[in-house]
Amino acid sequence: MTLQETLKGISPLDKKYFELAKRRLDNLTKPPGSLGRLEEIAQRLAAIKENAMPELGRKVIFTLAGDHGVCEEGVSAYPKEVTAQMVFNFLRGGAAINVLGRHAGADVVVVDAGVDYDFGDVPGLVNGKVVPGTMNMCKGPAMTREEAVASVELGIRLVHDHAKKGYGLIGTGDMGIGNTTPSSAIAAVITGTPVATVTGRGTGITDSALDEKIKTIEKAIDVNRPDPDDALDVLSKVGGAEIGGIAGVCLGAAAMRVPVVVDGFISTAGALIAYTLEPKSAEYMFSAHRSQEPGQRAMLEHMGLAPILDLDMRLGEGTGSAIAMLVIEAALKIYREMATFGEAGVTG
Amino acid sequence: MTLQETLKGISPLDKKYFELAKRRLDNLTKPPGSLGRLEEIAQRLAAIKENAMPELGRKVIFTLAGDHGVCEEGVSAYPKEVTAQMVFNFLRGGAAINVLGRHAGADVVVVDAGVDYDFGDVPGLVNGKVVPGTMNMCKGPAMTREEAVASVELGIRLVHDHAKKGYGLIGTGDMGIGNTTPSSAIAAVITGTPVATVTGRGTGITDSALDEKIKTIEKAIDVNRPDPDDALDVLSKVGGAEIGGIAGVCLGAAAMRVPVVVDGFISTAGALIAYTLEPKSAEYMFSAHRSQEPGQRAMLEHMGLAPILDLDMRLGEGTGSAIAMLVIEAALKIYREMATFGEAGVTG
Repeated sequence: MTLQETLKGISPLDKKYFELAKRRLDNLTKPPGSLGRLEEIAQRLAAIKENAMPELGRKVIFTLAGDHGVCEEGVSAYPKEVTAQMVFNFLRGGAAINVLGRHAGADVVVVDAGVDYDFGDVPGLVNGKVVPGTMNMCKGPAMTREEAVASVELGIRLVHDHAKKGYGLIGTGDMGIGNTTPSSAIAAVITGTPVATVTGRGTGITDSALDEKIKTIEKAIDVNRPDPDDALDVLSKVGGAEIGGIAGVCLGAAAMRVPVVVDGFISTAGALIAYTLEPKSAEYMFSAHRSQEPGQRAMLEHMGLAPILDLDMRLGEGTGSAIAMLVIEAALKIYREMATFGEAGVTG
Repeated sequence: MTLQETLKGISPLDKKYFELAKRRLDNLTKPPGSLGRLEEIAQRLAAIKENAMPELGRKVIFTLAGDHGVCEEGVSAYPKEVTAQMVFNFLRGGAAINVLGRHAGADVVVVDAGVDYDFGDVPGLVNGKVVPGTMNMCKGPAMTREEAVASVELGIRLVHDHAKKGYGLIGTGDMGIGNTTPSSAIAAVITGTPVATVTGRGTGITDSALDEKIKTIEKAIDVNRPDPDDALDVLSKVGGAEIGGIAGVCLGAAAMRVPVVVDGFISTAGALIAYTLEPKSAEYMFSAHRSQEPGQRAMLEHMGLAPILDLDMRLGEGTGSAIAMLVIEAALKIYREMATFGEAGVTG
């Protein structure tokens, strides 16, 4: 399915299901509203699934990897080759997302969206390579517009392939040395927030490296002049392939009526691209957690999303999505499994 | 084991284990510190267990129930008989704590600490009844000092019985119509915060009922004059049996070196009693979540604890403990199962 078809397939949620779900929640053996966010989540799941008694099925986290030409400006604490090394770590099951995916009962699907390494045919890796790493956005566009579209359509395809197999709750994740830099650029351009406000330390750079990172992002925006109203222009000029893939996952999920858990900073930048292409897509998104990267806040506010968790995390990979999935499942179980006042013989 | 023996058995955590654990965490394939709270939790688990590679074993949540004489002042939105009705709901598996306990893989142990109902011999219910409901604290002490001690020793006994059976992670929970009222009283007396600041709507009372609730608590404190430095005086005069039981669970866990997850507002009041008896006990506590009850904040600050979750919940029962246990387990699995840079061949 193409991007254009996908965008046309995204409908707003029907308020009727929120009301139906609220009626059930208020009849369960607890004071009305006393489970807070869990009750909100359950209502939205009913509306997404258009079902007063929704089920989710299997869970999957897509961890999309990509490299960034802007690394040659020295924006990261780690060398670029770590992206490919971490992909191998994911495939061997030793990374944080593997541990937390197992803990949450979610399959982890590792996708090469744009890594600067030739993996050949590695078992377990989805080859979705759109670019062999992006170009240095300080010198021109990171990708062409066609590559940007291809990265989004990669994400859409991932959702279609997995929804068919019975996956009903999707999480996003990322891996890409240097990718907080394009994410901050996207945040600044689309939300209209100063670069310095939305730029943080990523994997852990020093004060002076942070100053350089801010200047690098300002330069990339100045060189490319991305149009804030044209998400594909922003994605191609100052984005990245894994960010585009995440945008596609968000759009595909919305079109297929599958709830999507948006991980931290990089995933939120992908979600913001999706939102700018089709604002209704945000109704299908759950923000997993408050990232330690400062730029996430402006993006979440722009989309009207509030994170489920705040655990001071800043790793990416989908690690926040995995834990948030456990909260979303808790909400669904509360909704489905609790006794009503009548069933329990409790005075309401 | 008596309360006095238990208090003597509580040692401070050894900083050595925090350092050992941090060394391992910094060698795992992620930027140092990038898993935030999960890394803090893992370090503390190592120190609690005095083991550089800790294990937790089975999980249990104690849901302690008690009634409150102060209900005759009209402090709750629900009638007093709901406490016993909810105990039956717990035993049948239909309450929120049953659903979330199953979700978290934690056993739920329901304890009658002081319900105003004669359950007789009901399968699955632990009979720890200290009082048949407390007395109305507006007219005199809620309990005698001996009853207060007995309620704390009930909690200590619960921990001993379960630690022997292989339970290594304990959560607290409560059920008791009216029990936000004594919890606010405890918060006000021990932290020295005005009653109005630490009093909220509980199960959901109106503005005018909230005003009355504040006056009721002020009157109870005025009538009883509890000594803020004498936790047993506070517990007996303006507390409750389930709150004392929770204090005992916290103390017993600290003495047995078992991490204890403290649920919301009522559990935090119990934890505050434990802390006032022995401040070192807080080193073994994890605050599960930020309650919507305003009085929890002053108590957590008093003890130097920060909640793991903030899901706008205010139900009690141990519901926050159940979800927080999933985060604590995530932290432990990260610590135990992730690959190191060396193992994974990733550039550190």
